[in-house]
Order: sequence, then structure tokens, then C-alpha cells
Amino acid sequence: MWQLYQFPLCPFSRKVRLLLGEKGEGYELVRESPWDQRDEFLDMNPAGQTPVLVDKVGGLVLIDSAAICDYLEETIERATMLPGTAAHRAEIRRLAVWFDHKFHDEVVRPLMYERMEKRLVHRLSPDAKALREAMRLANSHLDYVDWLLDHRRWMAGPLFSLADLAAAAHISVADYLGGIDWRGHDRTRHWYAGMKSRPSFRPLLSERMEVVGPPDHYDKVDF
Amino acid sequence: MWQLYQFPLCPFSRKVRLLLGEKGEGYELVRESPWDQRDEFLDMNPAGQTPVLVDKVGGLVLIDSAAICDYLEETIERATMLPGTAAHRAEIRRLAVWFDHKFHDEVVRPLMYERMEKRLVHRLSPDAKALREAMRLANSHLDYVDWLLDHRRWMAGPLFSLADLAAAAHISVADYLGGIDWRGHDRTRHWYAGMKSRPSFRPLLSERMEVVGPPDHYDKVDF
Ligand SMILES: N[C@@H](CCC(=O)N[C@@H](CS)C(=O)NCC(=O)O)C(=O)O
Ligand SMILES: N[C@@H](CCC(=O)N[C@@H](CS)C(=O)NCC(=O)O)C(=O)O
Repeated sequence: MWQLYQFPLCPFSRKVRLLLGEKGEGYELVRESPWDQRDEFLDMNPAGQTPVLVDKVGGLVLIDSAAICDYLEETIERATMLPGTAAHRAEIRRLAVWFDHKFHDEVVRPLMYERMEKRLVHRLSPDAKALREAMRLANSHLDYVDWLLDHRRWMAGPLFSLADLAAAAHISVADYLGGIDWRGHDRTRHWYAGMKSRPSFRPLLSERMEVVGPPDHYDKVDF
Repeated sequence: MWQLYQFPLCPFSRKVRLLLGEKGEGYELVRESPWDQRDEFLDMNPAGQTPVLVDKVGGLVLIDSAAICDYLEETIERATMLPGTAAHRAEIRRLAVWFDHKFHDEVVRPLMYERMEKRLVHRLSPDAKALREAMRLANSHLDYVDWLLDHRRWMAGPLFSLADLAAAAHISVADYLGGIDWRGHDRTRHWYAGMKSRPSFRPLLSERMEVVGPPDHYDKVDF
């Protein structure tokens, strides 16, 4: 049985959970707060980051969400999330990385820092200016996503893929943290309603992080 | 013929160039300075980052160094840089990501900003404190690399891999920018001397970036 070291709002762990869910692979959650920098966790992952996926029986420790997803894709054939030709896969990976880096660094990370980490770790209040800037960037990035979805059925092309999982993972955390204004983003909202109704997504939507709650619409498929 | 949009000190472009070189694949360099945010470049890559690898004939545009490396691995069988089992590949990817994120964000990016971008774009002098901190982190990260190489022949295990290329790409840029003090890192220095003498590496070592030159030892295999 897989064990996933994570915390409820870690977007990279959410991406891995969505992939495990789509593949119908069972796993157990282990709560890990990377900001605690536990020695045992640092021994396991010198980078000190979640997610880490462990197979105790096989003695396997997988680190980094992209490396974990590649491992799962290579070893579990069913429900491939990297479908198509090598060129299709390159487009899927480009967009997964775009969410993992660009959308994360400019939207999710500042929201997490201001609304979660500051309260939880530093006992400080969020900075209104930083929040406004993250929300402004979220809005402009969703314009790009609207444009993509105007031209294709799914995020990276005609087929459902890892790019949709990465997108849903990051957008869901930003949405939980109140960073998304859905007005004017009907294309993305429609796609996201479809993601929310997938069985792989349901368990994530019902979880809560201590100290910070989501807006009312967060777990509703109609929103 | 491939065209690679890059500039001489972009570590992600260096990683791709090393992979193309190891595979004996020809390519042409196109100089791109991402800080100029050229419209034509943003049309090609909305993330505005180098490297971008283009195949004009096939009309293929590949974005993000990890996606590019995966594409090249999937389509060119010779000289695989992801050798071994799925578990070996996961370890290779973990370390490639460790250099691309951790080592880059904490060492290469601040060195590039302080010593190159500030001079080139903002006409400012580097900040001594930021440089010292980057060099301190470089030193502690090289301790980890020494430890890895004490336990294995190459960066990620018994076989030469993408992890060695990623490591050499980032370390070479940090070294060009004077950020590496090699004293006390004999294990890594020995590995790096081997990397420097590879035919895939030689062309990179002879290139120079305007406004900032490397230290004397930079392109010497014996250093
Ligand atoms: N490249 C990593 C990034 C993981 C990451 O940034 N995780 C965050 C939590 S969402 C973390 O552990 N942050 C603590 C730290 O970076 O020290 C991945 O894709 O797994
Ligand atoms: N994830 C990207 C990162 C590329 C990257 O950060 N490139 C730098 C140059 S070394 C860049 O273009 N920076 C400008 C920017 O981020 O706006 C990759 O692996 O290709």
C-alpha cells in the first residue's frame, strides 16, 4: 500500500492524489507539515518538501511530484494521463509545468503564504497588497486558460491528461484560499465543474485545513 | 535541424545542449534574452522563458527544459540518459529536479541576478550580502553532492544520466559567475573534471556572456 506524505492544501500532493485516484490505485495519507522541518522527514527527502510517496514493502521512496507522476505512468498502464504522440506528451508536460511553476509561484504560493503559513507558523495577518497582486495574476492566468479551452476539449488537447490534473490541483488550492474570482471565466468554470465531479476529486474537496476555511462555493459542483 | 532559443548562461538551456550533444544531435543556436520579453518570443512561449527548442520543418515548438528532455529521450533511442528501472529513473528525475529547483533557486538565480541581470538590464552593482548568501548555500549544497558521489559512481547511481547533465549545467553557470569555492569539495571536483572533458561540454565552456567574464579556472579541465 502506498503512503503519501502530504498536507491538505499542498497542490503538488493533490496532483499526485488525482493521478492515483484516476488509476484506481489505493493509498494512505500521512500528514506532513514541511514547515516543521522534522528530522525524520528531512532524512527521507533532503529537499524537505511534500509530496513524498513511499512503498514500505518495496522499500521505495519517491520524491518530487513530477518524478512521482512519471513513475506511476511508467509502472501502471491503465488510465494513462500522458496519451498521444511524443509531441502531444510534450504539450501535456509544458502545461503541467506551467501550473506547477508559473501559476504556483505567482498565485498559489503567495496565497498559501499570506492566508495559511503566516497564520499557522508566524501568527501574523495577511498582507492585503500581496493578496490583491496574487488575485490579479490569477485572473490574468485564467484568461490564458479560457483561451486554451476555447481551442481544445481538454487543457492540453483532445484528450484528458496530466495537464488537467495539474491545473485542477493548483486551481483548487487557489480557490480554497479565496484567490479566484470566477466571474468572466465561464470556459474554465465549465471545465472545472467537470473536474470537481470526478470520483478522483471528491475526497480532496471534503478535506479542510486547520486555521483557514474555504469559501461557500468551494466544494459545490454547481458554483 | 533543431533551433535552440537560449543565451550562454541559461542553465536550463545548457542541460538541453548537453543532452543534444550526448545524443549526437545537431542544433543551431538562436540568441534570446528572456528579460527583453520580445513579442515574437512571448507568442512562441507564453511563459517567456528560455529554452525553447524548435523544429521548423516539422512545425514543432518544445517548451520547458524537462519536457524537452523527455521528448528527446522518447524520440531518440541512442545514448539514453534515463537508464535502468522505473525506480532508477525516479532517482534520476529527483536529482535533476533538485538541481533545477533547489540549486537553481538558491544559488544560480541569485548569482545570475546579482552579477549578470543587474548589470545588463538595470545598470546596478551586485549586492555583497546576497552574493555571500548564494555562495554559502552553494557550499552546503556541494557538501550534499560530495556525499552522493561518495556513495555512487555518478550523480544518481551506477550509470551516467540526466542527473549528471542537470548538475553540470547548473554548477557550470554558478562557477562561471564566481559562486563556487572548490576547496574541500574534491569528490565533486573530480566528477566535474570528468564532465568538463566530455565532447558535449567543450563548446559550452568556450562561450562568453557580455558584461561578465568567468574566473581563470572556469574552462580548464585541470582546476
Ligand atoms: N518540485 C516539488 C515542489 C513541492 C513543494 O514545493 N512543496 C511545498 C508544499 S506545497 C513544500 O514542501 N514547501 C516547503 C519547502 O519548500 O521548504 C514537487 O513538485 O513535488
Ligand atoms: N522550468 C523552465 C525554467 C526556465 C527558466 O527559468 N529560464 C530562465 C532563464 S535561465 C528565464 O527564461 N527567465 C526569465 C523569466 O522567468 O521570466 C525550464 O526548465 O525550462
